[in-house]
Amino acid sequence: MASFSSYIFLIILFIISVGASKIKSIYLPGTYQSSLLVKKHDEKTKIPFKTHYFPQILDHFTFLPRSSKVFYQKYLINDQYWHKGGGPIFVYTGNEGNIEWFAVNTGFMIDIAPKFNALLVFIEHRFYGDSMPFGNNSYKSAKTLGYLNSQQALADYAVLIRSLKQNLSSDSSPVVVFGGSYGGMLAAWFRLKYPHIAIGAVASSAPILQFDKITPWSSFYDAVSQDFKDASLNCYKVIKGSWAELDALSTHDDGLIEVSKLFRTCKALHSVYSARDWLWEAFVYTAMVNYPTEANFMMPLPAYPVEEMCKIIDGLPKGASKLSKAFAAASLYYNYTQTEKCFNLEGGTDSHGLHGWDWQACTEMVMPMTCSNESMFPLSSFSYKEFTQDCKKQFGVKPRPHWITTEFGGYRIEQVLKRFGSNMIFSNGMQDPWSRGGVLKNISSSIVALITQKGAHHVDFRSETKNDPDWLIMQRKQEVAIIEKWLEEYYKDLKQN
Amino acid sequence: MASFSSYIFLIILFIISVGASKIKSIYLPGTYQSSLLVKKHDEKTKIPFKTHYFPQILDHFTFLPRSSKVFYQKYLINDQYWHKGGGPIFVYTGNEGNIEWFAVNTGFMIDIAPKFNALLVFIEHRFYGDSMPFGNNSYKSAKTLGYLNSQQALADYAVLIRSLKQNLSSDSSPVVVFGGSYGGMLAAWFRLKYPHIAIGAVASSAPILQFDKITPWSSFYDAVSQDFKDASLNCYKVIKGSWAELDALSTHDDGLIEVSKLFRTCKALHSVYSARDWLWEAFVYTAMVNYPTEANFMMPLPAYPVEEMCKIIDGLPKGASKLSKAFAAASLYYNYTQTEKCFNLEGGTDSHGLHGWDWQACTEMVMPMTCSNESMFPLSSFSYKEFTQDCKKQFGVKPRPHWITTEFGGYRIEQVLKRFGSNMIFSNGMQDPWSRGGVLKNISSSIVALITQKGAHHVDFRSETKNDPDWLIMQRKQEVAIIEKWLEEYYKDLKQN
Repeated sequence: MASFSSYIFLIILFIISVGASKIKSIYLPGTYQSSLLVKKHDEKTKIPFKTHYFPQILDHFTFLPRSSKVFYQKYLINDQYWHKGGGPIFVYTGNEGNIEWFAVNTGFMIDIAPKFNALLVFIEHRFYGDSMPFGNNSYKSAKTLGYLNSQQALADYAVLIRSLKQNLSSDSSPVVVFGGSYGGMLAAWFRLKYPHIAIGAVASSAPILQFDKITPWSSFYDAVSQDFKDASLNCYKVIKGSWAELDALSTHDDGLIEVSKLFRTCKALHSVYSARDWLWEAFVYTAMVNYPTEANFMMPLPAYPVEEMCKIIDGLPKGASKLSKAFAAASLYYNYTQTEKCFNLEGGTDSHGLHGWDWQACTEMVMPMTCSNESMFPLSSFSYKEFTQDCKKQFGVKPRPHWITTEFGGYRIEQVLKRFGSNMIFSNGMQDPWSRGGVLKNISSSIVALITQKGAHHVDFRSETKNDPDWLIMQRKQEVAIIEKWLEEYYKDLKQN
Repeated sequence: MASFSSYIFLIILFIISVGASKIKSIYLPGTYQSSLLVKKHDEKTKIPFKTHYFPQILDHFTFLPRSSKVFYQKYLINDQYWHKGGGPIFVYTGNEGNIEWFAVNTGFMIDIAPKFNALLVFIEHRFYGDSMPFGNNSYKSAKTLGYLNSQQALADYAVLIRSLKQNLSSDSSPVVVFGGSYGGMLAAWFRLKYPHIAIGAVASSAPILQFDKITPWSSFYDAVSQDFKDASLNCYKVIKGSWAELDALSTHDDGLIEVSKLFRTCKALHSVYSARDWLWEAFVYTAMVNYPTEANFMMPLPAYPVEEMCKIIDGLPKGASKLSKAFAAASLYYNYTQTEKCFNLEGGTDSHGLHGWDWQACTEMVMPMTCSNESMFPLSSFSYKEFTQDCKKQFGVKPRPHWITTEFGGYRIEQVLKRFGSNMIFSNGMQDPWSRGGVLKNISSSIVALITQKGAHHVDFRSETKNDPDWLIMQRKQEVAIIEKWLEEYYKDLKQN
């Protein structure tokens, strides 16, 4: 076992959430996230939406004196394409971040809205962005954070959608929910739990099977590694070998200085772990966003960035150290635009209080992950006991690791949903390591899996570009055709009743 | 409008729950219930079940410091017929009362268990019977009662069933849920929300459409009245006319004394309303339990007790007052066994703290009911505003009258469930006034309505008797055949996977 053996990296979409056991020694969660979101804040003005706030109830599932407290939940509306006389409503079920960020990165919905004469609604998830039930105190302790979870979020969406439809006098408008990543999980679960509110769900890159023992715990990092191996076996080997070199440096007297130099840090490093996490993040995120076109989701990156990283590694002289090659590859992720003179590996602050996912990971969203010997990452294991101890320490809360599968299912999903439910699309790109925890096979005639071998993390939800490959154009067309079928069926049924 | 115009009678199954506005002036809720349950307590020893207690979590839907508190939830098990190697598990989703009471009155499950080699499990609903999250303080205030609601109860069942299956090493055993009345609503909702845990639901007399504006508010009392009208038009007219006579007496100087005498009360009455409620209860409950055989569900009663009541009314001399006739008819309900020398119309105490339904009615289970001119009851209306004021006064809680339909649906149920869900039986007897809020039409090939014209409140769930009419035998056979089909399908699917 490598020295990081108990180090668990839980990543969902773009939020880095490290196993609580190591948070103390590595970096503040949300470090990278917060700077990203600052950027996104600037983009607010560009998006074609009007911002609204809905008076939402704090706790849908108890009637304690505090439960009925109201907070203001943000949602965005675009009605420029909507046919008000019954046209469909496309709702994005917001995930762990500012809702503008998802609106910007879900251009697919804007692209197809005119065709469907659809109203677009993006709803922010409670405890993210501006939707803070207790204002600046929302993240103060378990007494406030305790209201942050997926079931409350789904109920928020149900209440808000129902109210919105009433206010718009469009009770008969069919609602289709969309979501990517955790938002995709929410969309899928919303269709399952609230079929009377949403007639269908498009869940892109939704790892609803990444819980409990449903999906092998090593699958995520194995998949990241496979992406690199597919690009170049040498590349995979170099990265796999780089950790030991970093380890060796960490025991060295001048190790920190050497690493700081090698990694061109703006300030001298305090911990060699920072370098490891910096590399780790670059490889994992690049695998997730291994898009077929130039894109700027996490960071500006070229088309098929994993291949580009491996080209960098393979192009360096044989004599260079593996660590320096890994650094060079990771630099693509952090500095594709060539604007960075040095790198800040440490010292990010959680200025936006966006570590909500850490809380969720410590309560219900327990996704055990390990690194196997097949992966390019250092071996690591997962222990419920340690995880529980860490969460108690960090948040004073005990995880309920089997709750999500109790509440939403997951085991034998094919058998269950073959006879229950309908109108769901699970889309996945196999480049995306999250795909391994997704639904990858058709379950019934109307619960379908759309898989692309070269696709990455909810690439189908991105705005169309002139460089989109055929398979992506095709995937989106399939999605549009399926949604059309749902709507036709709905309107036909409506007429009959 | 009669003087009782704002008097709302909310009855579910056997718990009398009067509109909070009048509770103060009438009687304590649960009066009749508590004495019934005392009886049932004595029957505990007779039922073929072993009692267990499950450490249940207080709040499934938040992670506040208090949420993970554990309480002990009672459940009953009978494994004498069970085929442990994968045999099915039949679970009764307990409703608002002692679980033994439901076990005793759901003989159908015991009757069919040998045929299916089924394990029988009856789970008690939180805040009823012995399943008190805060012991004797459970009903103290909104701070404790706030955890009493249907979603928490469903989650309890999910967690308990999953744990039970693990402990019994019978993970592949299919679970079918059963429930009557509110328990039937829970069974239906459980199948909808937890299809990965229950493969099917048998919901008997489950008024899942008795919410919001789905079912006409006057339908319940209109249905009670129709039962009496069908038995005898004169009978209906006599009862309809009796209220005015009672009203007239209430303005009389010696009115209370006269009423006490007429109603053969053991003690002089304090309020003439007590007599009204006493009559009201007798007529409503008798309509609900208008069973085709002698039975003792609410009270010992002969077969088709509504007809018997009307025979009493029609048999009395023309000159007798309507009120005296109504009293004579109601006496059948309270004194079929002829053991009562006088009647206690007042002074019941809520010794078992069983007014949980009042809390539920004041929070989520808001079922507006009115009495129309067509009914045999005094005209009455319903106002959300008044209802809210009363609930605030009584419990310090504000009802969420649209929450149940948001959480569980109900509007356009046929359109929604035609394309979603499967394996549900909604059985209803049209004698039962609750049937009007039930699902009365087949929705799909596997979501079916079994209706009997002469059936009453979950009569199909009662133990078979040698006097059962053919239509009842047939209804139960249909249910068994449908459950068989679900199980066959399940085992077939299981084999294929």
